[in-house]
Amino acid sequence: IAISCPAWAQSDPLPSWNDTAPKKAIIAFVDRVTKEGGPDFVPPADRVATFDNDGTLWVESPVYTQVAFAFDRVKQMAPQHPEWKTQQPFKGILEGDMKAVAATGEKGLFQIVVATSTGMTNEQFEQTVSDWIAQARDRKFNHPYTELIYQPMVELLAYLRSNGFKTFIVSGGEVGFMRPWTEKAYGIPPDQVVGTTMKTQLETQDGKPVIMRLPEISFVDDGPGKPVGIDTFIGERPIAAFGNSDGDQQMLEWTAAGPGPRFMLLVHHTDAEREYAYDRKSSVGKLDKALDEANAKGWTVVSMKDDWKQIFAFQP
Amino acid sequence: IAISCPAWAQSDPLPSWNDTAPKKAIIAFVDRVTKEGGPDFVPPADRVATFDNDGTLWVESPVYTQVAFAFDRVKQMAPQHPEWKTQQPFKGILEGDMKAVAATGEKGLFQIVVATSTGMTNEQFEQTVSDWIAQARDRKFNHPYTELIYQPMVELLAYLRSNGFKTFIVSGGEVGFMRPWTEKAYGIPPDQVVGTTMKTQLETQDGKPVIMRLPEISFVDDGPGKPVGIDTFIGERPIAAFGNSDGDQQMLEWTAAGPGPRFMLLVHHTDAEREYAYDRKSSVGKLDKALDEANAKGWTVVSMKDDWKQIFAFQP
Ligand SMILES: [Ca+2]
Ligand SMILES: [Ca+2]
Repeated sequence: IAISCPAWAQSDPLPSWNDTAPKKAIIAFVDRVTKEGGPDFVPPADRVATFDNDGTLWVESPVYTQVAFAFDRVKQMAPQHPEWKTQQPFKGILEGDMKAVAATGEKGLFQIVVATSTGMTNEQFEQTVSDWIAQARDRKFNHPYTELIYQPMVELLAYLRSNGFKTFIVSGGEVGFMRPWTEKAYGIPPDQVVGTTMKTQLETQDGKPVIMRLPEISFVDDGPGKPVGIDTFIGERPIAAFGNSDGDQQMLEWTAAGPGPRFMLLVHHTDAEREYAYDRKSSVGKLDKALDEANAKGWTVVSMKDDWKQIFAFQP
Repeated sequence: IAISCPAWAQSDPLPSWNDTAPKKAIIAFVDRVTKEGGPDFVPPADRVATFDNDGTLWVESPVYTQVAFAFDRVKQMAPQHPEWKTQQPFKGILEGDMKAVAATGEKGLFQIVVATSTGMTNEQFEQTVSDWIAQARDRKFNHPYTELIYQPMVELLAYLRSNGFKTFIVSGGEVGFMRPWTEKAYGIPPDQVVGTTMKTQLETQDGKPVIMRLPEISFVDDGPGKPVGIDTFIGERPIAAFGNSDGDQQMLEWTAAGPGPRFMLLVHHTDAEREYAYDRKSSVGKLDKALDEANAKGWTVVSMKDDWKQIFAFQP
């Protein structure tokens, strides 16, 4: 009998996952929806899977990577902005006074975004992001951020695609910050990245058309914005959705509310040693209401400590 | 020598095209960008091609299909709206007085859009569009609108995809009106349809999440909006773009302004017998400035009469 079984059937598509309930649930779901003639078969065209990014596909602690980027940009740009020495939130960033930065709230964050990522063309911003991503290192692991991606999730993306799924990012992060590197990191091309968008407009520079990034947020792809983003950019309801925080709750509910087989999963950060441990009281990636709903409704919850054999490719 | 040539190399990928300059230019371009090791090779990930819809992939005369849909909806909904008997532009539609409708201008058109396609969920609208598309017939050909698609363009889409291109629609039409049928008609899935969008929001109905269509246009994907739509939804500059009117001028300019090999094409409606003939003075699909620019810059211009052997699949 062993001889009649083809070799590929014995290779493990998710080797970084422990053989616990989440891995079994994922494989059982994929088997159900791909079994031709089966009662839960889903045609390939409808196999849409959406993934949150920060905290689901890569590290978001202690600050979102896009915030780290913006802070670095403020420091780089400071010589051209002497006025920042006395203006919050810029003063706080330059002096490492995070309390002063936090005190400026949403308005301060918006000022930082405007100062560091608008008033330039989309191509200039793409180059800026690519340059930063190539050289920046996080503090805890001292690795490039694109190496702080979760190996089990990278395997899961590839496993779903090899089973006919189309994989999308649906993130609160800004699309212009993600698209320069998602294809290389996750195998997800720019047009399958949904996120927060800045207002842009077509202009002419030196006789050539350019897309200018304006100091205005056009759409916030978080919380109740995620189903809206999915509807606007993808135009189809996912049959599987993956997140890690309360900001994903509506995306998972929207996915669950469709007909036929559905798969909802939350990544729970439980591994203080290999990564970080946080949930209900975290200011970044708060997981509270969505965790209760997952438990109540039987959505899959991954404990990074228990369910992942390996977290990063660079770790043993 | 003939024997060593594989059979597939001899089959014609564009059988509905005459063997004139446009067909030769298309094939030469595809050969250039797909030749591995060649100076103009483009990796598959960057083979993005964008297509206008109305007048480029399907008929737009004498009125845009979406306008025909909206007018039919007004007639269907009239019994629930007795006030329309005395209110323009509705009165004009019900009485067949197109002059009165036209007199209400953009404001009137917007009122029609709001009345016929908002205040309902995205799923209700999708069902409404699907039902209409299934039964509506145009007046000249008496065929369903999804049969009024240009067979040479359908072949071109398939030819590009078989050469590793990702094909997108970038249309002034509303995405919600196109996505229900583009996959079946053109092989283009919902997430590869870029268009004008309505503002939407997440609501709860009977305990279930729904996406509600609000009476506000969010983004107009026409003229200078097309490069913006491409940047926002696709995130990559096309290397090939196909249009038919001045509303495509900026999309073609945006495509042309990138580095490396580029292909820009305009469909010129020159066949009054098999389809329609119109250009510089038409109120629908006006082709004037873009035609001058195409001629000046050597973009490919297709004369439907001269370059297409067959226009519709149902015609001989
Ligand atoms: Ca997250
Ligand atoms: Ca058109």
